[in-house]
Amino acid sequence: MALIVQKYGGTSVGSIELIHKVAARVARVRERGDRVVVAVSAMGDATDRLVDLARSLCPAPDPRELDALLATGEQVSIALLAMALTARGVPARSFTGAQVRIRTTSAHGRARIEAVETAMLTAALDAGIVPVVAGFQGVDAEGAITTIGRGGSDTTAVALAVALRADECQILTDVDGVYTTDPRMVRGARRLERLSFEEMLELAGQGSRVLHLRAVEFAAKYGLALRVLASHGDGPGTLIDREDPTVEAPVVSGIAFNRDEAQIVISGVPNAPDTAHRLLWPVSDAGIEIDMIVLAPNEDGTADFAFTVHRGDYVQALELARRGAAYCPAARVDGTDRVAKMSIVGVGMRSHAGVAARLFATLASAGITVRLVSTSEIRISVLLAEAELERAVHETHDAFSLSGQSGFI
Amino acid sequence: MALIVQKYGGTSVGSIELIHKVAARVARVRERGDRVVVAVSAMGDATDRLVDLARSLCPAPDPRELDALLATGEQVSIALLAMALTARGVPARSFTGAQVRIRTTSAHGRARIEAVETAMLTAALDAGIVPVVAGFQGVDAEGAITTIGRGGSDTTAVALAVALRADECQILTDVDGVYTTDPRMVRGARRLERLSFEEMLELAGQGSRVLHLRAVEFAAKYGLALRVLASHGDGPGTLIDREDPTVEAPVVSGIAFNRDEAQIVISGVPNAPDTAHRLLWPVSDAGIEIDMIVLAPNEDGTADFAFTVHRGDYVQALELARRGAAYCPAARVDGTDRVAKMSIVGVGMRSHAGVAARLFATLASAGITVRLVSTSEIRISVLLAEAELERAVHETHDAFSLSGQSGFI
Repeated sequence: MALIVQKYGGTSVGSIELIHKVAARVARVRERGDRVVVAVSAMGDATDRLVDLARSLCPAPDPRELDALLATGEQVSIALLAMALTARGVPARSFTGAQVRIRTTSAHGRARIEAVETAMLTAALDAGIVPVVAGFQGVDAEGAITTIGRGGSDTTAVALAVALRADECQILTDVDGVYTTDPRMVRGARRLERLSFEEMLELAGQGSRVLHLRAVEFAAKYGLALRVLASHGDGPGTLIDREDPTVEAPVVSGIAFNRDEAQIVISGVPNAPDTAHRLLWPVSDAGIEIDMIVLAPNEDGTADFAFTVHRGDYVQALELARRGAAYCPAARVDGTDRVAKMSIVGVGMRSHAGVAARLFATLASAGITVRLVSTSEIRISVLLAEAELERAVHETHDAFSLSGQSGFI
Repeated sequence: MALIVQKYGGTSVGSIELIHKVAARVARVRERGDRVVVAVSAMGDATDRLVDLARSLCPAPDPRELDALLATGEQVSIALLAMALTARGVPARSFTGAQVRIRTTSAHGRARIEAVETAMLTAALDAGIVPVVAGFQGVDAEGAITTIGRGGSDTTAVALAVALRADECQILTDVDGVYTTDPRMVRGARRLERLSFEEMLELAGQGSRVLHLRAVEFAAKYGLALRVLASHGDGPGTLIDREDPTVEAPVVSGIAFNRDEAQIVISGVPNAPDTAHRLLWPVSDAGIEIDMIVLAPNEDGTADFAFTVHRGDYVQALELARRGAAYCPAARVDGTDRVAKMSIVGVGMRSHAGVAARLFATLASAGITVRLVSTSEIRISVLLAEAELERAVHETHDAFSLSGQSGFI
């Protein structure tokens, strides 16, 4: 008898009809003889509507009160799902974050889970009751309601699974697994049977929206197996687990991409030790997150300096970069917010040489210019003109033979 | 420095604009130098919409989960009001029933308040923070969210005021006080400056909707002064307090009425000791509440028996009465659901004779037939044809000189 934690996202419980479908699916887990704990997000766009309501009251709502307001979104969905389960004869009980005692820090809107008390949940499970737990929310040491940030219900599910020593944490969503790349862009994209935590971390960090980054980090830390499944459909989904040493690791598992990019290039700056600091300090001091950074020396003793920021920060970052560059007389500052980042990820890169070479050859033969490169042990990211992104993903997907019917790479 | 508990009903916080107005009003109490605790209902028709949502999921929602769902209504309004207060520079903090620890029985949907913990509220007040508390809800010994029934926010406010030993509990609503009768029916109806608990209990029990009956009972039990005020307007409202022995009590303070009535008459039954029991038992056994009861003996040894029920129970009660009357061969069962009840209430009735005589004379001279009568020490209720109710209220209001400009009767 396994213990499964299932997490259903907002679109999976977006209507009364869908809530009944979720209840039927939870009931099937019990019929198989397994025990199940369910974590649920707010229905559909409920959270967005609550944020809009608060903003219509005042532009900068008190963070403590905003959390108390947002937490009602999941409270509605857990109550409705528990009702739907009870109505079909499955004993169920809803629990808010405060009722479980999902203890978090007091950083409203971005609290971190510190501990999950299991007493209430274990008592319910032992009594044959399905606990239906509100995702995204917790309670701080003073008893204030907190939320753990957007996408936080994935993290709630993982934290529950870790605390309860569950056998598997299933993330049920509107796709039936993790794909080699976004199947809306590449028709030949293939569902992956299995993926390592490290690969999933890189994919989530580089633009894949299937799983919340913090949830994967949490699962990786505790070695908890995650499974991404379609909430309204069958199929085995994608298992995310420790690397399996008995299976040869794929060179490239998947391709993630992110259009939310902007690039700033400062050319002709002195190639001196403090140049990077002088140029970046005003930007990071303004709280703007900097992603890729490249400093390329020229033969004349100057250097070209480039970095990327979120597209929404572009105008401000450009202005700040101009201010920083004023210290370097020869500098010229340019930029563009029509760039995108493509990343290839695979644990096989560790042992396989030539992956970068094959990527660059593929892009070059397609006439696509690489504007910036950054790498990790199992990832290569390239910055491209946004207009060329789709073609780049297609060519790369083909070059690494990611299409096809076979389950495992 | 007084401690005031203010309760704002759903219509008072029915929109973002109204929530700002309530915040301004709460701020004024603080500016006067008083301390204030606020209890709030769900916005507008939020509770009805949540009930509809649950019913669209299943016809008979699990009571525990229905309470968890309904409690989100007040959680939204307390968070928004606390935001509005904070935004105007008044430190405020929202508290759900569970956060305060308003301990109730586990009877979901109609729980009774057993205890109110004051530690969180007192700590907030001592820190200069306005506690904004969710009305209508509490938490049981197992930590489950409970609700205390419709109109329960009045009761929450009174319970908070009693627990905190507040100087006054103000019920802010869409009328500016308690009137001699419903001013929508009688233009000359006059706001009462003051009313005793007993009078308010009788008025609330007989159809006045200004205050929730249980809240008045609670306040009366602990001698807590209540004040009914307009939430969006000025004026002293109506004070409901212990009888003031230094002021002569009014003979009649007010007139309440209730259209939700139906009458069943069983005539020609044996005038035997067990007749009433035989006739009423099937009705009360079906859970139907019986209000007025009269057994009038005839000269031929038979008796006429009459009682009233809620109009919604009329058809079922008539059928059950016919079944009960089948044991009495001569009986004839009639009924009507086109009746209404008018009640006059006043503590002066205790010491003034002739009130009933004046009432009957008034109605008789207006050609209005009284179909049933019931009384308490400070109340006389009469059942009338519904079509004659409005005229009866007008004539009685005049006969007891309830109109006029003077504040105190």
